[in-house]
Amino acid sequence: MRKALGLLLTLALVLGLVGPGASAQTKDKPGTPERKSVHVQIVLFDGFDLMDALAPYEVFAAAGMYTGEAMTVELVSAEGKRSVPSGLNGPALEATAKLDPNRPGIILVPGASGKPAGKTADAIPAILAQAAKTSLPGIMKKALDNKDVTVAAVCGGSLLLAMPGFLKGKHAVTNHIGMDALGALGAIPVKARVVEDNPRLVTGGGVTSGLDVALYLVERELGPQVANEVEKLFEYESRGTVWKAEGLVPIDFAANQEGKAQPVK
Amino acid sequence: MRKALGLLLTLALVLGLVGPGASAQTKDKPGTPERKSVHVQIVLFDGFDLMDALAPYEVFAAAGMYTGEAMTVELVSAEGKRSVPSGLNGPALEATAKLDPNRPGIILVPGASGKPAGKTADAIPAILAQAAKTSLPGIMKKALDNKDVTVAAVCGGSLLLAMPGFLKGKHAVTNHIGMDALGALGAIPVKARVVEDNPRLVTGGGVTSGLDVALYLVERELGPQVANEVEKLFEYESRGTVWKAEGLVPIDFAANQEGKAQPVK
Repeated sequence: MRKALGLLLTLALVLGLVGPGASAQTKDKPGTPERKSVHVQIVLFDGFDLMDALAPYEVFAAAGMYTGEAMTVELVSAEGKRSVPSGLNGPALEATAKLDPNRPGIILVPGASGKPAGKTADAIPAILAQAAKTSLPGIMKKALDNKDVTVAAVCGGSLLLAMPGFLKGKHAVTNHIGMDALGALGAIPVKARVVEDNPRLVTGGGVTSGLDVALYLVERELGPQVANEVEKLFEYESRGTVWKAEGLVPIDFAANQEGKAQPVK
Repeated sequence: MRKALGLLLTLALVLGLVGPGASAQTKDKPGTPERKSVHVQIVLFDGFDLMDALAPYEVFAAAGMYTGEAMTVELVSAEGKRSVPSGLNGPALEATAKLDPNRPGIILVPGASGKPAGKTADAIPAILAQAAKTSLPGIMKKALDNKDVTVAAVCGGSLLLAMPGFLKGKHAVTNHIGMDALGALGAIPVKARVVEDNPRLVTGGGVTSGLDVALYLVERELGPQVANEVEKLFEYESRGTVWKAEGLVPIDFAANQEGKAQPVK
């Protein structure tokens, strides 16, 4: 027993040693009262994908931890507080509040988890179609119209926004298996891991790109030092240049063998 | 309304087109009745880290989906069926069964989510110390002694196994901020993203390395085609060579400027 206590003490001491280094990294920009907190709502719906929702959740939560709550995050649903089952018979998560499109900050829509194709009720197209019949699209329309809200979507979340026509003419990305559908629904599909349009719409590709969507938003809202600290904690480095409609447009060699790079019109 | 239906149909059709390709990839090795299913238990404890637990959960679940359930996965706890709160005041998940150390397959222990240092109850050392006081270590000892079980741990999960002395003399990895503690607790810390010892102990580094631990186990148990299919679905490529105590031992230039690579003794 004394030995066990000694080991616990060792563990606490050794882990404790990293404290000063970690806090030194963030001391230039502590979460100060004058900095308004960025609130993130992550929207759950029946059949949602766990990692699409929770990888960003955890990035945002860690960013809050490293800034004295300059960022806060909660799980919400269109229907309000309820237990929401994830897809593929996965575990349920409790949405603790109703999705509020009037609240400034970030609203993130995950995709669905299910069979990647087919016509059964547990296939992704059916799960997204079911979610599209709820009050979720109507509320998201208000969020998209709110200038104080950035709407983010991961994986099939982009399709869920595109299905009612909300992404017409907007640049976006989704899981590679849904890119043709995204185009058919009127969006401009861009092959990048993260795509920012306008800049109030930020979409990510397949499941794990949710990490990159969230790290980009943390950097944009709170700065690179916080994003870097979260990356170190999670042993992840954000992947891919965030695509934006700015800068030179690279020559499209498939369409034009001789052109020059052009600025965005 | 007709337009909305048309768009849904387009979505279903476009997504449907990927079906034949996806199933062609797995047709060589379908989940056949003679292949026994690999069961995975993921162990939740109060304050567990969401991504440590759920990124592997989702990889294993997708592997099951692509093989007609040649792999099954469930969330368990030492106490049995109960709602288990995650760390940092995060959402709870329902453990649906009691951790069974006698059941052949894989048992995965996640780490804790909390402040990376300090002495408060919401700091990782305190959360792990609390979990170490439950019946979890006793059950995990039986699992480690069961030749039909592979024990996997992600991030602080390795420390949880090391605290009662179970990793003495074993090669393992944990989050980089816990590597000194892991050594102080008698394990042999190895700087790799995934470390396999013996081969019934597989550990991973920080949070996102859970993806790599799970993809490695899927490849080892079900083959590379299934792991590759899951990678494509999640838009992730497994990172890092899995360290094993085999092959040549590279020259340690810090200790020896002139040596030759040596085989493992």
